[in-house]
Amino acid sequence: MNRGRFITFEGGEGAGKTTQIERLRRYLEGRGRSVLATREPGGTEGGEAIRALLVTGDPGRWDPLTEALLNFAARREHVARRIGPALTAGTWVLCDRFADSTTAYQGAGHGVPRVAIDALYDIAVGPLRPDLTLILDLPVALGLRRARAPRDGAEDRYERMDIAFHERLREGFLGIARDDPERCRVIDATPDPDRVAAAVVEAVEAAFGAEVA
Amino acid sequence: MNRGRFITFEGGEGAGKTTQIERLRRYLEGRGRSVLATREPGGTEGGEAIRALLVTGDPGRWDPLTEALLNFAARREHVARRIGPALTAGTWVLCDRFADSTTAYQGAGHGVPRVAIDALYDIAVGPLRPDLTLILDLPVALGLRRARAPRDGAEDRYERMDIAFHERLREGFLGIARDDPERCRVIDATPDPDRVAAAVVEAVEAAFGAEVA
Repeated sequence: MNRGRFITFEGGEGAGKTTQIERLRRYLEGRGRSVLATREPGGTEGGEAIRALLVTGDPGRWDPLTEALLNFAARREHVARRIGPALTAGTWVLCDRFADSTTAYQGAGHGVPRVAIDALYDIAVGPLRPDLTLILDLPVALGLRRARAPRDGAEDRYERMDIAFHERLREGFLGIARDDPERCRVIDATPDPDRVAAAVVEAVEAAFGAEVA
Repeated sequence: MNRGRFITFEGGEGAGKTTQIERLRRYLEGRGRSVLATREPGGTEGGEAIRALLVTGDPGRWDPLTEALLNFAARREHVARRIGPALTAGTWVLCDRFADSTTAYQGAGHGVPRVAIDALYDIAVGPLRPDLTLILDLPVALGLRRARAPRDGAEDRYERMDIAFHERLREGFLGIARDDPERCRVIDATPDPDRVAAAVVEAVEAAFGAEVA
C-alpha cells in the first residue's frame, strides 16, 4: 500500500483553517482517499490535555521555551501514535497546525531561537516532514476580528496577545514559506471560503497531480 | 551576594527523599542559610499542572519521549522562574529530583537515547548544573514496599510499572554516579532516617566545607 500524504495548514488566528480542512477532507474522500483530519496542539488524548494547558489562562502563563517544549511533547505523541500510523496505513493526514506554528508563535512571536526549535524537531519528530504546507495568510486586523467572533471562547490565550505579536507571527509564517518554497504554498485567506477552497484544491492538485485525479 | 548552592536529591520510589530534604533544610537554616525546598516535576504553578499529567493515569499513558519532553517543559519553567532567581538571590535550593531522574526513568527505564536527553538538557536548562547530587540508593523491593504505604495514593503511575523497570532505574542512577563522581554521592538509604540524615550532612559538609560551618 502507498504511504498517505501529509498536508499541514498553517496561519494566524482567524485564517479559516478549520473550514478549509473540512472542505479538503470532503474533496479527497470524494476521490476515494482515506483521510484523517486532526489538529495541534492536540490530536491524541494526551495531546489534548497538553493543549488545555497552552490555550487557556494568562498570556504570560508560560516561559516561551516551556511553550515550545509543551508543543513538541504534544507533537511527539501525535506523530508516534496517530499521524505516523495513519500515513503508514495509506491514509492522507490533514493537520491543523504543525511545527511551523511553533517556529512562528514561539520563535518569531516570542523570541525562542530557531536553532532550539529545529533541534527539538529532530528529537521529537525525527525525519518526518509534511509533503505540503498551506499557509493561509490574511491581514492581522481582519484575522483577529474573525477569530474574536463568538466561538470557543475559552481557547483565547493567543488571541489576547498584542497586535505586535500577531504581526511578528504573520511575518514568521511568510518567512517560513520563503525559506522552503518546495514544501510551502501561501494562500490568500482574505476572500470568501469558496474561493479559498478553490485555491487549496489547486495547490493540492499541483503538488500531487495524478494521485488526486 | 554569593550565589546559593544547588543540591539535588535523586533515587527510585520510596528512597526517603522528602524526609531527607526536610531534614537538610532545617540543618542549613540552623546555620543561617536561606533555603528553598522544591520538587520535580513541579515546583511552579505550571510545572505542577504538568506533574499531574505525568504521575497519574495508566503506566502506558505516554510515549517515553513525550514524557521526557514534558519533564523538560516543567524543568524549564522551574529553572527560569524559580530555581535560577533563588540561586541568584543567594538562596540554597534543595530539589527533589532533577534531570538525572529523566536520564534514569525515561532513559535507562524506558529506552529514550541518552543523546536526546542530553540535547534536551542543553536546550531547556542551559549551562546550570547541580553543585551536588545525592543519590539515595536502596534495593528495589524495599523501596516499593515503602512507597506503597498509604500516602498520596493517586500519584502512583511510576510505582505501578514492573519490577524490571525499577531495576533498570536503580542501575541508571548508579551509572550516573559512576559517570560523574565529582557531582554525585551515592547514599545508602536502607538504614533508619537518622543515619541517612547523618550521611547527607557529611556529604554536604565534604562538598561545601566552610560555607556550612
